[in-house]
Amino acid sequence: VKIGIIGLGLIGGSIGLDLRDRGYQVLGVSQRSTTCETAVAIGAVDSASQDLASLREADVIFICTPIGLIRPTVVQLVPHLRSETVLTDVGSVKRSIVAEIAPLWPNFVGGHPMAGTAESGINAALRGLFVGNPYVLTPMAETPPQAVASVRELISQLGGKYLECLPEVHDRSVAWISHLPVMVSASLIAACEREVDPAVAQLAIALASSGFRDTSRVGGGNPELGRMMAEFNRSALLETLQGYRSQLDQMIELIQSEQWSSVETILQKTQVDRPKYLKES
Amino acid sequence: VKIGIIGLGLIGGSIGLDLRDRGYQVLGVSQRSTTCETAVAIGAVDSASQDLASLREADVIFICTPIGLIRPTVVQLVPHLRSETVLTDVGSVKRSIVAEIAPLWPNFVGGHPMAGTAESGINAALRGLFVGNPYVLTPMAETPPQAVASVRELISQLGGKYLECLPEVHDRSVAWISHLPVMVSASLIAACEREVDPAVAQLAIALASSGFRDTSRVGGGNPELGRMMAEFNRSALLETLQGYRSQLDQMIELIQSEQWSSVETILQKTQVDRPKYLKES
Repeated sequence: VKIGIIGLGLIGGSIGLDLRDRGYQVLGVSQRSTTCETAVAIGAVDSASQDLASLREADVIFICTPIGLIRPTVVQLVPHLRSETVLTDVGSVKRSIVAEIAPLWPNFVGGHPMAGTAESGINAALRGLFVGNPYVLTPMAETPPQAVASVRELISQLGGKYLECLPEVHDRSVAWISHLPVMVSASLIAACEREVDPAVAQLAIALASSGFRDTSRVGGGNPELGRMMAEFNRSALLETLQGYRSQLDQMIELIQSEQWSSVETILQKTQVDRPKYLKES
Repeated sequence: VKIGIIGLGLIGGSIGLDLRDRGYQVLGVSQRSTTCETAVAIGAVDSASQDLASLREADVIFICTPIGLIRPTVVQLVPHLRSETVLTDVGSVKRSIVAEIAPLWPNFVGGHPMAGTAESGINAALRGLFVGNPYVLTPMAETPPQAVASVRELISQLGGKYLECLPEVHDRSVAWISHLPVMVSASLIAACEREVDPAVAQLAIALASSGFRDTSRVGGGNPELGRMMAEFNRSALLETLQGYRSQLDQMIELIQSEQWSSVETILQKTQVDRPKYLKES
Protein backbone atom coordinates (compact mmCIF):
# COMPACT_ATOMS: atom_id res chain seq x y z
CA VAL A 1 0.00 0.00 0.00
CA LYS A 2 1.40 3.37 -1.10
CA ILE A 3 0.36 6.45 0.84
CA GLY A 4 -0.05 9.96 -0.52
CA ILE A 5 -0.11 13.06 1.67
CA ILE A 6 -1.11 16.48 0.33
CA GLY A 7 -0.24 19.34 2.66
CA LEU A 8 2.90 18.69 4.70
CA GLY A 9 2.26 20.49 7.98
CA LEU A 10 1.90 19.27 11.56
CA ILE A 11 -0.79 16.70 10.75
CA GLY A 12 0.40 15.60 7.29
CA GLY A 13 4.02 15.40 8.43
CA SER A 14 3.14 13.42 11.55
CA ILE A 15 1.06 10.92 9.56
CA GLY A 16 4.04 10.47 7.22
CA LEU A 17 6.57 9.92 10.02
CA ASP A 18 4.45 7.19 11.66
CA LEU A 19 3.39 5.39 8.46
CA ARG A 20 6.97 5.31 7.14
CA ASP A 21 8.02 3.81 10.50
CA ARG A 22 5.40 1.08 9.88
CA GLY A 23 6.98 0.31 6.48
CA TYR A 24 4.63 2.16 4.14
CA GLN A 25 5.98 4.07 1.19
CA VAL A 26 4.87 7.71 1.56
CA LEU A 27 4.64 10.25 -1.29
CA GLY A 28 4.20 13.88 -0.27
CA VAL A 29 2.90 16.95 -2.08
CA SER A 30 3.33 20.53 -0.94
CA GLN A 31 2.91 23.84 -2.77
CA ARG A 32 6.29 24.98 -1.48
CA SER A 33 9.56 23.39 -2.56
CA THR A 34 11.27 24.21 0.77
CA THR A 35 8.53 22.27 2.61
CA CYS A 36 9.06 19.33 0.24
CA GLU A 37 12.78 19.38 1.02
CA THR A 38 12.23 19.56 4.78
CA ALA A 39 9.67 16.73 4.69
CA VAL A 40 12.20 14.46 2.97
CA ALA A 41 14.99 15.59 5.28
CA ILE A 42 13.10 14.80 8.51
CA GLY A 43 11.87 11.47 7.14
CA ALA A 44 8.18 12.37 6.93
CA VAL A 45 8.00 11.23 3.28
CA ASP A 46 10.04 9.03 0.96
CA SER A 47 9.76 11.64 -1.78
CA ALA A 48 7.95 14.92 -2.22
CA SER A 49 6.80 17.00 -5.15
CA GLN A 50 4.83 20.14 -5.93
CA ASP A 51 2.98 18.18 -8.63
CA LEU A 52 -0.27 16.36 -7.81
CA ALA A 53 0.40 14.00 -10.74
CA SER A 54 3.14 12.42 -8.60
CA LEU A 55 0.39 10.73 -6.54
CA ARG A 56 -0.91 8.55 -9.42
CA GLU A 57 0.44 5.39 -7.78
CA ALA A 58 -0.91 6.15 -4.30
CA ASP A 59 -3.55 3.77 -2.88
CA VAL A 60 -4.73 6.01 -0.07
CA ILE A 61 -4.27 9.80 -0.11
CA PHE A 62 -4.60 12.00 2.99
CA ILE A 63 -5.61 15.58 2.19
CA CYS A 64 -4.08 17.65 5.00
CA THR A 65 -4.53 21.17 3.63
CA PRO A 66 -6.44 23.91 5.45
CA ILE A 67 -10.22 23.36 5.22
CA GLY A 68 -10.74 26.05 2.59
CA LEU A 69 -8.29 24.36 0.19
CA ILE A 70 -9.71 20.83 0.34
CA ARG A 71 -12.21 21.24 -2.48
CA PRO A 72 -9.92 23.10 -4.94
CA THR A 73 -7.20 20.51 -4.22
CA VAL A 74 -9.51 17.59 -5.00
CA VAL A 75 -10.72 19.27 -8.22
CA GLN A 76 -7.11 19.50 -9.42
CA LEU A 77 -6.21 16.03 -8.11
CA VAL A 78 -9.05 13.98 -9.63
CA PRO A 79 -7.72 13.88 -13.26
CA HIS A 80 -4.55 12.18 -11.97
CA LEU A 81 -6.21 9.44 -9.90
CA ARG A 82 -6.85 5.76 -10.59
CA SER A 83 -10.50 4.89 -9.80
CA GLU A 84 -9.56 2.57 -6.92
CA THR A 85 -7.60 5.27 -5.06
CA VAL A 86 -9.12 6.15 -1.68
CA LEU A 87 -9.21 9.80 -0.57
CA THR A 88 -9.59 10.99 3.00
CA ASP A 89 -9.16 14.37 4.66
CA VAL A 90 -8.29 15.60 8.17
CA GLY A 91 -10.51 18.70 8.33
CA SER A 92 -12.15 19.66 11.63
CA VAL A 93 -15.63 19.96 10.08
CA LYS A 94 -17.22 17.19 8.04
CA ARG A 95 -20.73 17.85 6.74
CA SER A 96 -19.83 20.56 4.20
CA ILE A 97 -16.61 18.81 3.16
CA VAL A 98 -18.26 15.42 2.64
CA ALA A 99 -21.10 17.08 0.71
CA GLU A 100 -18.59 18.80 -1.59
CA ILE A 101 -16.07 15.99 -2.09
CA ALA A 102 -18.20 12.83 -2.32
CA PRO A 103 -19.74 13.91 -5.68
CA LEU A 104 -16.24 14.60 -7.04
CA TRP A 105 -14.77 11.29 -5.85
CA PRO A 106 -17.04 8.48 -4.61
CA ASN A 107 -14.09 6.67 -3.02
CA PHE A 108 -13.82 9.40 -0.38
CA VAL A 109 -14.13 9.04 3.41
CA GLY A 110 -14.22 12.14 5.59
CA GLY A 111 -11.88 11.99 8.59
CA HIS A 112 -10.89 14.04 11.63
CA PRO A 113 -7.99 13.14 13.90
CA MET A 114 -8.39 14.88 17.28
CA ALA A 115 -4.72 15.70 17.68
CA GLY A 116 -2.60 18.79 17.60
CA THR A 117 -0.06 20.89 19.41
CA ALA A 118 0.35 24.63 19.80
CA GLU A 119 2.87 24.47 16.94
CA SER A 120 2.20 24.11 13.24
CA GLY A 121 4.17 23.40 10.06
CA ILE A 122 6.36 20.52 8.92
CA ASN A 123 8.98 21.27 11.59
CA ALA A 124 6.35 20.63 14.27
CA ALA A 125 5.63 17.10 12.93
CA LEU A 126 5.89 14.46 15.66
CA ARG A 127 6.03 10.69 15.91
CA GLY A 128 3.12 9.22 17.88
CA LEU A 129 0.91 12.34 17.62
CA PHE A 130 -2.24 10.25 17.17
CA VAL A 131 -1.60 7.55 19.76
CA GLY A 132 -4.58 7.16 22.08
CA ASN A 133 -6.43 10.14 20.58
CA PRO A 134 -9.85 9.86 18.92
CA TYR A 135 -9.77 9.63 15.10
CA VAL A 136 -13.25 9.98 13.59
CA LEU A 137 -14.35 8.76 10.17
CA THR A 138 -17.68 9.94 8.77
CA PRO A 139 -18.73 7.58 5.97
CA MET A 140 -22.17 7.94 4.41
CA ALA A 141 -24.51 5.16 3.26
CA GLU A 142 -23.01 5.43 -0.27
CA THR A 143 -19.36 5.27 0.83
CA PRO A 144 -17.70 2.02 -0.34
CA PRO A 145 -16.99 -0.17 2.74
CA GLN A 146 -13.58 -1.04 1.30
CA ALA A 147 -12.59 2.64 1.37
CA VAL A 148 -13.57 2.88 5.05
CA ALA A 149 -11.68 -0.33 5.84
CA SER A 150 -8.49 0.95 4.11
CA VAL A 151 -8.42 4.20 6.07
CA ARG A 152 -9.42 2.46 9.29
CA GLU A 153 -6.45 0.11 8.97
CA LEU A 154 -4.11 3.12 8.67
CA ILE A 155 -5.71 4.79 11.72
CA SER A 156 -5.00 1.62 13.63
CA GLN A 157 -1.35 1.76 12.44
CA LEU A 158 -1.21 5.35 13.75
CA GLY A 159 -2.48 4.22 17.15
CA GLY A 160 -5.62 6.36 16.93
CA LYS A 161 -8.82 5.52 18.81
CA TYR A 162 -11.27 4.78 16.00
CA LEU A 163 -14.72 6.36 16.06
CA GLU A 164 -17.35 6.42 13.32
CA CYS A 165 -20.41 8.64 12.93
CA LEU A 166 -22.45 10.61 10.43
CA PRO A 167 -20.90 13.91 9.25
CA GLU A 168 -23.73 15.86 10.93
CA VAL A 169 -23.29 14.15 14.28
CA HIS A 170 -19.56 14.90 14.12
CA ASP A 171 -20.14 18.58 13.37
CA ARG A 172 -22.69 19.05 16.12
CA SER A 173 -20.41 17.32 18.64
CA VAL A 174 -17.31 19.36 17.80
CA ALA A 175 -19.46 22.51 17.81
CA TRP A 176 -20.17 21.85 21.52
CA ILE A 177 -16.71 20.92 22.72
CA SER A 178 -14.41 22.75 20.34
CA HIS A 179 -16.02 25.57 18.31
CA LEU A 180 -18.46 26.92 20.94
CA PRO A 181 -15.66 27.18 23.56
CA VAL A 182 -13.67 29.38 21.14
CA MET A 183 -16.58 31.84 20.79
CA VAL A 184 -17.42 31.73 24.53
CA SER A 185 -13.80 32.34 25.43
CA ALA A 186 -13.17 35.06 22.84
CA SER A 187 -16.33 36.87 23.97
CA LEU A 188 -14.93 36.91 27.53
CA ILE A 189 -11.78 38.71 26.41
CA ALA A 190 -13.73 41.09 24.15
CA ALA A 191 -16.24 41.88 26.93
CA CYS A 192 -13.46 42.72 29.42
CA GLU A 193 -11.97 45.05 26.83
CA ARG A 194 -15.28 46.97 26.77
CA GLU A 195 -14.83 48.24 30.35
CA VAL A 196 -14.82 52.03 30.09
CA ASP A 197 -13.58 52.93 33.60
CA PRO A 198 -9.78 52.96 33.26
CA ALA A 199 -9.26 52.25 37.01
CA VAL A 200 -11.38 49.09 36.75
CA ALA A 201 -9.82 48.01 33.43
CA GLN A 202 -6.28 48.48 34.73
CA LEU A 203 -6.92 46.64 38.01
CA ALA A 204 -8.61 43.79 36.14
CA ILE A 205 -5.42 43.32 34.12
CA ALA A 206 -3.32 43.45 37.30
CA LEU A 207 -5.50 40.91 39.13
CA ALA A 208 -6.14 38.39 36.33
CA SER A 209 -4.69 35.01 37.23
CA SER A 210 -5.04 31.31 36.35
CA GLY A 211 -8.84 31.33 36.16
CA PHE A 212 -8.86 34.03 33.52
CA ARG A 213 -5.86 32.51 31.76
CA ASP A 214 -7.54 29.12 31.30
CA THR A 215 -11.00 30.43 30.43
CA SER A 216 -9.57 32.82 27.82
CA ARG A 217 -7.00 30.46 26.26
CA VAL A 218 -8.87 29.19 23.20
CA GLY A 219 -10.42 32.62 22.61
CA GLY A 220 -6.93 34.06 22.20
CA GLY A 221 -5.89 31.46 19.62
CA ASN A 222 -5.47 31.51 15.85
CA PRO A 223 -8.07 33.96 14.38
CA GLU A 224 -8.10 32.36 10.90
CA LEU A 225 -8.84 28.96 12.44
CA GLY A 226 -11.65 30.42 14.56
CA ARG A 227 -13.16 32.08 11.53
CA MET A 228 -12.95 28.80 9.54
CA MET A 229 -14.75 26.91 12.33
CA ALA A 230 -17.56 29.47 12.22
CA GLU A 231 -17.70 29.60 8.44
CA PHE A 232 -17.58 25.85 7.74
CA ASN A 233 -19.64 24.73 10.73
CA ARG A 234 -22.05 27.67 10.78
CA SER A 235 -25.38 25.94 11.39
CA ALA A 236 -24.17 23.55 14.11
CA LEU A 237 -22.22 26.33 15.83
CA LEU A 238 -25.24 28.65 15.78
CA GLU A 239 -27.37 25.93 17.39
CA THR A 240 -24.88 25.54 20.24
CA LEU A 241 -24.53 29.31 20.60
CA GLN A 242 -28.32 29.62 21.00
CA GLY A 243 -28.32 26.84 23.61
CA TYR A 244 -25.44 28.50 25.42
CA ARG A 245 -27.20 31.85 25.39
CA SER A 246 -30.36 30.38 26.93
CA GLN A 247 -28.26 28.79 29.65
CA LEU A 248 -26.45 32.08 30.30
CA ASP A 249 -29.77 33.95 30.40
CA GLN A 250 -31.05 31.50 32.98
CA MET A 251 -27.98 32.14 35.13
CA ILE A 252 -28.39 35.93 34.78
CA GLU A 253 -32.08 35.65 35.70
CA LEU A 254 -31.31 33.58 38.82
CA ILE A 255 -28.65 36.04 39.99
CA GLN A 256 -30.93 39.01 39.26
CA SER A 257 -33.75 37.46 41.29
CA GLU A 258 -31.32 36.35 44.03
CA GLN A 259 -32.21 32.66 43.79
CA TRP A 260 -28.94 31.62 45.39
CA SER A 261 -29.74 28.00 46.04
CA SER A 262 -30.70 27.54 42.37
CA VAL A 263 -27.37 29.12 41.35
CA GLU A 264 -25.60 26.69 43.66
CA THR A 265 -27.59 23.74 42.27
CA ILE A 266 -26.43 24.57 38.72
CA LEU A 267 -22.83 24.86 39.90
CA GLN A 268 -23.09 21.56 41.80
CA LYS A 269 -24.27 19.90 38.61
CA THR A 270 -21.49 21.40 36.47
CA GLN A 271 -18.93 20.27 39.06
CA VAL A 272 -20.31 16.71 38.83
CA ASP A 273 -20.71 16.73 35.02
CA ARG A 274 -17.33 18.16 33.99
CA PRO A 275 -15.15 15.10 34.75
CA LYS A 276 -17.06 13.06 32.13
CA TYR A 277 -15.50 15.27 29.45
CA LEU A 278 -11.93 14.87 30.71
CA LYS A 279 -9.65 12.13 29.44
CA GLU A 280 -7.17 10.42 31.67
CA SER A 281 -4.19 11.59 29.62
CA VAL B 1 3.66 43.31 66.84
CA LYS B 2 1.43 40.35 67.68
CA ILE B 3 -0.64 38.83 64.88
CA GLY B 4 -4.05 37.20 65.20
CA ILE B 5 -5.52 34.89 62.58
CA ILE B 6 -9.15 33.77 62.66
CA GLY B 7 -9.90 30.89 60.33
CA LEU B 8 -6.97 28.52 59.90
CA GLY B 9 -7.33 27.24 56.35
CA LEU B 10 -5.14 27.60 53.26
CA ILE B 11 -4.93 31.40 53.45
CA GLY B 12 -4.89 31.84 57.25
CA GLY B 13 -2.41 29.01 57.69
CA SER B 14 -0.11 30.31 54.96
CA ILE B 15 -0.11 33.84 56.43
CA GLY B 16 0.83 32.30 59.81
CA LEU B 17 3.69 30.21 58.41
CA ASP B 18 5.31 33.20 56.70
CA LEU B 19 4.84 35.75 59.49
CA ARG B 20 6.22 33.34 62.10
CA ASP B 21 9.25 32.84 59.84
CA ARG B 22 9.70 36.64 59.92
CA GLY B 23 9.72 36.59 63.75
CA TYR B 24 6.15 37.65 64.51
CA GLN B 25 4.20 35.99 67.31
CA VAL B 26 1.05 34.49 65.77
CA LEU B 27 -2.14 33.61 67.70
CA GLY B 28 -4.68 31.47 65.85
CA VAL B 29 -8.41 30.89 66.31
CA SER B 30 -10.41 28.11 64.71
CA GLN B 31 -13.85 26.71 65.49
CA ARG B 32 -12.43 23.20 65.43
CA SER B 33 -9.98 21.92 68.04
CA THR B 34 -8.37 19.49 65.57
CA THR B 35 -7.58 22.42 63.26
CA CYS B 36 -6.06 24.30 66.20
CA GLU B 37 -3.84 21.30 66.96
CA THR B 38 -2.75 20.89 63.33
CA ALA B 39 -1.99 24.61 62.98
CA VAL B 40 0.34 24.46 66.01
CA ALA B 41 1.89 21.18 64.84
CA ILE B 42 2.80 22.50 61.36
CA GLY B 43 4.10 25.78 62.79
CA ALA B 44 1.44 28.05 61.31
CA VAL B 45 0.73 29.59 64.75
CA ASP B 46 2.49 29.85 68.09
CA SER B 47 -0.72 28.96 69.88
CA ALA B 48 -4.31 28.37 68.87
CA SER B 49 -7.66 28.50 70.60
CA GLN B 50 -11.37 28.17 69.87
CA ASP B 51 -11.93 31.32 71.96
CA LEU B 52 -11.91 34.76 70.28
CA ALA B 53 -10.98 36.30 73.68
CA SER B 54 -7.51 34.79 73.18
CA LEU B 55 -6.83 37.55 70.60
CA ARG B 56 -7.05 40.45 73.11
CA GLU B 57 -3.30 41.11 72.83
CA ALA B 58 -3.16 40.96 69.03
CA ASP B 59 -2.17 44.17 67.21
CA VAL B 60 -3.32 43.11 63.74
CA ILE B 61 -5.94 40.42 63.18
CA PHE B 62 -6.51 38.69 59.82
CA ILE B 63 -10.06 37.37 59.40
CA CYS B 64 -9.69 34.39 57.08
CA THR B 65 -13.11 32.78 57.39
CA PRO B 66 -15.44 32.17 54.45
CA ILE B 67 -17.07 35.43 53.28
CA GLY B 68 -20.43 34.64 54.86
CA LEU B 69 -18.86 34.29 58.32
CA ILE B 70 -16.88 37.55 58.35
CA ARG B 71 -19.64 39.74 59.78
CA PRO B 72 -20.83 37.30 62.51
CA THR B 73 -17.19 36.73 63.48
CA VAL B 74 -16.50 40.44 63.87
CA VAL B 75 -19.69 40.92 65.91
CA GLN B 76 -18.46 38.28 68.36
CA LEU B 77 -14.88 39.53 68.29
CA VAL B 78 -15.42 43.23 68.94
CA PRO B 79 -16.11 43.00 72.74
CA HIS B 80 -12.67 41.40 73.18
CA LEU B 81 -10.61 43.98 71.25
CA ARG B 82 -8.50 46.91 72.35
CA SER B 83 -9.41 50.06 70.39
CA GLU B 84 -6.01 50.23 68.67
CA THR B 85 -6.27 46.72 67.23
CA VAL B 86 -6.34 46.65 63.42
CA LEU B 87 -8.68 44.23 61.64
CA THR B 88 -8.32 43.10 58.07
CA ASP B 89 -9.98 40.34 56.04
CA VAL B 90 -9.05 38.25 53.00
CA GLY B 91 -12.47 37.96 51.33
CA SER B 92 -12.71 37.97 47.55
CA VAL B 93 -15.37 40.71 47.48
CA LYS B 94 -14.92 44.04 49.22
CA ARG B 95 -17.79 46.54 48.87
CA SER B 96 -20.37 44.66 50.93
CA ILE B 97 -17.82 43.51 53.51
CA VAL B 98 -16.32 46.98 54.01
CA ALA B 99 -19.84 48.47 54.27
CA GLU B 100 -20.76 45.92 56.96
CA ILE B 101 -17.54 45.87 59.00
CA ALA B 102 -16.37 49.51 59.01
CA PRO B 103 -19.33 50.63 61.18
CA LEU B 104 -18.57 47.81 63.64
CA TRP B 105 -14.85 48.52 63.84
CA PRO B 106 -13.41 51.76 62.42
CA ASN B 107 -9.87 50.37 62.55
CA PHE B 108 -10.72 47.93 59.72
CA VAL B 109 -9.07 47.68 56.29
CA GLY B 110 -10.56 45.40 53.66
CA GLY B 111 -8.03 43.15 51.95
CA HIS B 112 -7.83 40.54 49.21
CA PRO B 113 -4.71 38.48 48.51
CA MET B 114 -4.85 37.03 44.97
CA ALA B 115 -3.41 33.66 45.90
CA GLY B 116 -4.66 30.14 46.17
CA THR B 117 -4.20 26.56 45.13
CA ALA B 118 -6.65 23.83 44.17
CA GLU B 119 -6.36 22.57 47.77
CA SER B 120 -7.95 24.02 50.87
CA GLY B 121 -7.69 23.59 54.64
CA ILE B 122 -4.83 23.94 57.12
CA ASN B 123 -2.96 20.98 55.62
CA ALA B 124 -2.76 22.87 52.33
CA ALA B 125 -1.03 25.87 53.97
CA LEU B 126 2.20 26.81 52.18
CA ARG B 127 5.21 29.01 52.79
CA GLY B 128 5.61 31.76 50.17
CA LEU B 129 2.01 31.51 48.89
CA PHE B 130 1.76 35.30 48.46
CA VAL B 131 5.18 36.00 46.96
CA GLY B 132 4.86 38.05 43.79
CA ASN B 133 1.05 37.87 43.79
CA PRO B 134 -1.20 40.96 43.97
CA TYR B 135 -2.51 41.77 47.46
CA VAL B 136 -5.20 44.48 47.35
CA LEU B 137 -6.23 46.75 50.23
CA THR B 138 -9.43 48.79 49.90
CA PRO B 139 -9.32 51.62 52.47
CA MET B 140 -12.02 54.28 52.42
CA ALA B 141 -11.60 58.00 53.09
CA GLU B 142 -12.45 57.37 56.78
CA THR B 143 -10.00 54.48 57.26
CA PRO B 144 -7.17 55.48 59.67
CA PRO B 145 -3.90 55.72 57.64
CA GLN B 146 -2.04 53.97 60.46
CA ALA B 147 -4.27 50.91 60.04
CA VAL B 148 -3.46 50.79 56.32
CA ALA B 149 0.26 51.21 57.04
CA SER B 150 0.24 48.33 59.57
CA VAL B 151 -1.38 45.88 57.17
CA ARG B 152 0.72 47.10 54.26
CA GLU B 153 3.90 46.37 56.21
CA LEU B 154 2.72 42.79 56.79
CA ILE B 155 1.87 42.37 53.09
CA SER B 156 5.40 43.44 52.32
CA GLN B 157 6.70 40.83 54.79
CA LEU B 158 4.60 38.22 52.96
CA GLY B 159 6.18 39.24 49.64
CA GLY B 160 2.84 40.34 48.15
CA LYS B 161 2.58 42.92 45.38
CA TYR B 162 0.74 45.79 47.07
CA LEU B 163 -2.24 47.40 45.31
CA GLU B 164 -4.75 49.87 46.69
CA CYS B 165 -8.16 50.87 45.36
CA LEU B 166 -11.73 51.65 46.37
CA PRO B 167 -13.89 48.65 47.36
CA GLU B 168 -16.14 49.23 44.33
CA VAL B 169 -13.26 49.33 41.87
CA HIS B 170 -11.97 46.07 43.34
CA ASP B 171 -15.33 44.35 43.03
CA ARG B 172 -15.90 45.44 39.44
CA SER B 173 -12.39 44.31 38.47
CA VAL B 174 -12.66 40.85 40.07
CA ALA B 175 -16.12 40.49 38.55
CA TRP B 176 -14.49 40.71 35.09
CA ILE B 177 -11.51 38.45 35.59
CA SER B 178 -12.67 36.03 38.29
CA HIS B 179 -16.43 35.88 38.88
CA LEU B 180 -17.65 36.33 35.28
CA PRO B 181 -15.32 33.55 34.03
CA VAL B 182 -16.91 31.15 36.55
CA MET B 183 -20.41 31.85 35.19
CA VAL B 184 -19.26 31.80 31.54
CA SER B 185 -17.45 28.51 32.08
CA ALA B 186 -20.23 26.85 34.11
CA SER B 187 -22.77 27.86 31.46
CA LEU B 188 -20.62 26.08 28.84
CA ILE B 189 -20.79 22.79 30.77
CA ALA B 190 -24.50 23.21 31.52
CA ALA B 191 -25.27 24.05 27.86
CA CYS B 192 -23.44 20.93 26.60
CA GLU B 193 -25.47 18.86 29.04
CA ARG B 194 -28.65 20.17 27.38
CA GLU B 195 -27.92 18.32 24.11
CA VAL B 196 -30.88 15.98 23.60
CA ASP B 197 -29.48 13.78 20.79
CA PRO B 198 -27.66 10.97 22.62
CA ALA B 199 -25.33 10.28 19.64
CA VAL B 200 -24.17 13.90 19.64
CA ALA B 201 -23.89 14.08 23.44
CA GLN B 202 -21.87 10.86 23.63
CA LEU B 203 -19.51 11.83 20.81
CA ALA B 204 -18.99 15.28 22.36
CA ILE B 205 -17.79 13.57 25.55
CA ALA B 206 -15.51 11.27 23.54
CA LEU B 207 -13.99 14.15 21.53
CA ALA B 208 -13.57 16.77 24.27
CA SER B 209 -9.91 17.64 24.73
CA SER B 210 -7.67 20.40 26.09
CA GLY B 211 -9.75 23.29 24.72
CA PHE B 212 -12.86 22.13 26.53
CA ARG B 213 -10.87 21.17 29.61
CA ASP B 214 -9.40 24.66 30.02
CA THR B 215 -12.53 26.62 29.14
CA SER B 216 -14.63 24.56 31.57
CA ARG B 217 -12.17 24.43 34.48
CA VAL B 218 -13.41 27.25 36.70
CA GLY B 219 -17.04 26.37 35.92
CA GLY B 220 -16.48 22.92 37.40
CA GLY B 221 -15.02 24.30 40.65
CA ASN B 222 -16.38 24.72 44.18
CA PRO B 223 -20.16 25.42 43.95
CA GLU B 224 -20.40 27.14 47.36
CA LEU B 225 -17.62 29.53 46.35
CA GLY B 226 -19.33 30.30 43.04
CA ARG B 227 -22.59 30.99 44.80
CA MET B 228 -20.83 33.29 47.31
CA MET B 229 -19.22 35.28 44.47
CA ALA B 230 -22.64 35.80 42.92
CA GLU B 231 -24.34 36.57 46.21
CA PHE B 232 -21.75 38.98 47.62
CA ASN B 233 -20.77 40.63 44.34
CA ARG B 234 -24.20 40.59 42.72
CA SER B 235 -24.39 44.06 41.20
CA ALA B 236 -20.86 44.12 39.74
CA LEU B 237 -21.24 40.55 38.44
CA LEU B 238 -24.58 41.38 36.80
CA GLU B 239 -22.99 44.35 35.04
CA THR B 240 -20.24 42.17 33.59
CA LEU B 241 -22.76 39.46 32.65
CA GLN B 242 -24.78 42.04 30.69
CA GLY B 243 -21.64 43.27 28.95
CA TYR B 244 -20.65 39.69 28.16
CA ARG B 245 -24.08 38.89 26.81
CA SER B 246 -24.00 41.91 24.43
CA GLN B 247 -20.62 40.77 23.19
CA LEU B 248 -21.89 37.21 22.67
CA ASP B 249 -24.98 38.54 20.88
CA GLN B 250 -22.75 40.50 18.54
CA MET B 251 -20.77 37.35 17.74
CA ILE B 252 -23.97 35.34 17.12
CA GLU B 253 -25.30 38.10 14.86
CA LEU B 254 -22.08 38.19 12.82
CA ILE B 255 -22.07 34.42 12.35
CA GLN B 256 -25.77 34.41 11.48
CA SER B 257 -25.27 37.10 8.85
CA GLU B 258 -22.05 35.41 7.61
CA GLN B 259 -19.86 38.46 8.18
CA TRP B 260 -16.73 36.35 8.29
CA SER B 261 -14.16 39.09 8.10
CA SER B 262 -15.80 40.84 11.09
CA VAL B 263 -15.67 37.55 13.02
CA GLU B 264 -11.98 37.28 12.17
CA THR B 265 -11.39 40.92 13.19
CA ILE B 266 -12.83 40.24 16.66
CA LEU B 267 -10.68 37.11 17.01
CA GLN B 268 -7.59 39.01 15.87
CA LYS B 269 -8.24 41.60 18.57
CA THR B 270 -8.78 38.99 21.30
CA GLN B 271 -5.54 37.26 20.26
CA VAL B 272 -3.70 40.57 20.62
CA ASP B 273 -5.47 41.63 23.85
CA ARG B 274 -5.20 38.40 25.85
CA PRO B 275 -1.45 38.54 26.67
CA LYS B 276 -2.01 41.80 28.65
CA TYR B 277 -3.93 39.76 31.21
CA LEU B 278 -1.25 37.09 31.60
CA LYS B 279 1.50 37.38 34.18
CA GLU B 280 4.99 36.16 33.47
CA SER B 281 4.84 33.58 36.27
